[in-house]
Amino acid sequence: MKPVKVGICGLGTVGSGTFNVLTRNAQEIERRVGCEIIIEQIGARRDNPNCITTGTNITRDIFDVAVNPEVDIVVELIGGNDVALKLVMLAIENGKHVVTANKALIAVHGNEIFAAAKKNNVTVAFESAVAGGIPIIKALREGLAANKINSLAGIINGTGNFILSEMQQKGRDFSSVLSEAQALGYAEADPTFDVEGIDAAHKLTILASIAYGVELQFDKAYTEGISKVTTEDVQFADELGYRIKHLGIARRTQTGIELRVHPTMIPKDTLLANVNGVMNAVLVDADAVGQTLHYGAGAGDEATGSAVIADIIDIARNINSADSRAVAPLGFQTDELSDSPIMSMEETETGYYLHLKAAEKPGVLAEITKIIGDCGINIEAIVQKESDEEYVPVILLTQRVVERKMNQAIAQIEALESTLGSVARIRVEHL
Amino acid sequence: MKPVKVGICGLGTVGSGTFNVLTRNAQEIERRVGCEIIIEQIGARRDNPNCITTGTNITRDIFDVAVNPEVDIVVELIGGNDVALKLVMLAIENGKHVVTANKALIAVHGNEIFAAAKKNNVTVAFESAVAGGIPIIKALREGLAANKINSLAGIINGTGNFILSEMQQKGRDFSSVLSEAQALGYAEADPTFDVEGIDAAHKLTILASIAYGVELQFDKAYTEGISKVTTEDVQFADELGYRIKHLGIARRTQTGIELRVHPTMIPKDTLLANVNGVMNAVLVDADAVGQTLHYGAGAGDEATGSAVIADIIDIARNINSADSRAVAPLGFQTDELSDSPIMSMEETETGYYLHLKAAEKPGVLAEITKIIGDCGINIEAIVQKESDEEYVPVILLTQRVVERKMNQAIAQIEALESTLGSVARIRVEHL
Repeated sequence: MKPVKVGICGLGTVGSGTFNVLTRNAQEIERRVGCEIIIEQIGARRDNPNCITTGTNITRDIFDVAVNPEVDIVVELIGGNDVALKLVMLAIENGKHVVTANKALIAVHGNEIFAAAKKNNVTVAFESAVAGGIPIIKALREGLAANKINSLAGIINGTGNFILSEMQQKGRDFSSVLSEAQALGYAEADPTFDVEGIDAAHKLTILASIAYGVELQFDKAYTEGISKVTTEDVQFADELGYRIKHLGIARRTQTGIELRVHPTMIPKDTLLANVNGVMNAVLVDADAVGQTLHYGAGAGDEATGSAVIADIIDIARNINSADSRAVAPLGFQTDELSDSPIMSMEETETGYYLHLKAAEKPGVLAEITKIIGDCGINIEAIVQKESDEEYVPVILLTQRVVERKMNQAIAQIEALESTLGSVARIRVEHL
Repeated sequence: MKPVKVGICGLGTVGSGTFNVLTRNAQEIERRVGCEIIIEQIGARRDNPNCITTGTNITRDIFDVAVNPEVDIVVELIGGNDVALKLVMLAIENGKHVVTANKALIAVHGNEIFAAAKKNNVTVAFESAVAGGIPIIKALREGLAANKINSLAGIINGTGNFILSEMQQKGRDFSSVLSEAQALGYAEADPTFDVEGIDAAHKLTILASIAYGVELQFDKAYTEGISKVTTEDVQFADELGYRIKHLGIARRTQTGIELRVHPTMIPKDTLLANVNGVMNAVLVDADAVGQTLHYGAGAGDEATGSAVIADIIDIARNINSADSRAVAPLGFQTDELSDSPIMSMEETETGYYLHLKAAEKPGVLAEITKIIGDCGINIEAIVQKESDEEYVPVILLTQRVVERKMNQAIAQIEALESTLGSVARIRVEHL
């Protein structure tokens, strides 16, 4: 059968992993697909010493690949937004299928990319954009396609999970672990995307659109990072039976869809709480199947390459099929997306862990609990920690309540003369 | 677009779950697939009070469904071997696609079924045959298709896992938990298939063929049940830092493929060791992606129905495509299966936990350790337990060694005058 020809744009970490796996496992892959997959061309500004590309057609201008008449599938692995978008759109206009690992590109420009792909009758695949090697997009679009998805919650940023795991297991503080993560190459020199949750929000946006069949709406995701999580909070959470994880959560409610990334306390005996280090996992709760967990490496050259190649194989298996019933980019047919609104964080309901400093004198706890009660919030536990300081830590766990009410309570507590500074809050979920 | 019409044969647990989910989520599914999926006919000997089939064409003769010219996909949910095989072959001969949840049928007759399907250019899908609602077959055939699979290890029988979990968590013994499982409906009146590992071996056979691209060879699987696992062993394992799980393991080695189901001790801090109750999980170790874990409900009406419908949706998405590159039943093209041999248990290498009774007198441990050393086996730990009896429990942990050598050592230990009865062995894996 006619071989399928791919052009790889970008030869960084993921590019070299993709090249190496595709080359090393060529025979196994051909046995699966029934045809050869040939690397027709590579577009890269420079060579990568980790892959031996001798004999492969290499161009320094990635746009060459998008217009190469021999190329069936353009693989975009350059990252970033502007050039990547130009490349992908040019490839689509030239009738190429596209595989991309670029979560920012899909989360921000996915809607227009999918529209162009539909118009040009080509496939755009992006399994590698979320949770690296875990085939979670395929699971949601196909494996669980019979289900209404109730909620999904994912550890989808390996850097953040590495930092929180180290803080929890070794009692270290955020900044010292971050420095180590940077030295180990887990975190970028500018760690903002990872630790402030932007990377996770990109991925969550994609997962939520697939789960619920809504357009990509990255700008509506609530995003809170882990840089303010303290060693103390990790310790207090442990004492209460919880772990703090940086989760991306999407949930279907009566009024819309929750879309939020924030540090979250979850019971420590759950599987998700025990996903440590740089590993990723996504817990899906669906109406027919119940809970499923999808766990694996969230990054890495070959792990991400594994997902890139899975997309290439999918396209190769269907390349001669013009059936418009084929799996749509978001799993739902493009003209069947729903307009369920994304909810604001104020409307979202969770449990809360509060950590504040209060003067150690009679009546202070009564003042605080009165405010909370008056705001319609039920307290599950309250603990006053010992301390030699004038202001001692007070820890509160509350039942589920809409965030708006909690915001009111926190503002009033912070205004008390008997409390010091701001109230730290971590949302609590029993997944 | 033209609707796709299914005929459901069998209206037991899975049949009713499939009917109910397909009916309840019809709109969501149509949004995904782009066409309606209609239940054209049901073949069932009797009605099921759990589903309201009013208005649906019901026949008491399931073979009517296989020849109904209106039916595109025949869904075989009657279970068993003989009648199910006849039904599936008749459906295939009549040009119907087939979806089945029947693990025994696929493990034992899969090769001939797939050959007939290929000849008649129809799809046979069986996601629901392994691990209920977990999309593990899709993950192996498609999501991880870029990889060489090194090994897979699965908790793929919920009944067995429920029993072992209860034994571990509550110190109960095998037979009392089994009785409870039967009362709860988790175990059949004849529990042999579940507790003796036959059900797990059916599923493992299927997973291994997909992982390695070899023909289905159920008769070569090594199968050992959990009925001999004692409360003492569960307790000793715990003290040594392990849990006992009933695993199906397939591993690629230099000389062939290991295919084995047996009680296995695994370190207690691993995710797989913490999969409890009736839940299932499959850990896959692959060359590019590393380890992935796929966790969820292994049985249940709607969980299994979820997988049945995922197969229906896959077929509906591709029903007009005659592309022979479509996903083959075992993921590998049927004419590209390999003849890697399935290895005998004697050739398999694992660590071992041994539990024996030895006379409490000088020199006995020396005798035992000499036998083990002479057989070329390295001991990792040896513990003599206290007891008031004449013969006291001795626990040994060994390093990895081929089973043949261990069989020799066990035979010699059992022949000693200073030991009593037989040596209990549980294989140890660090997955």
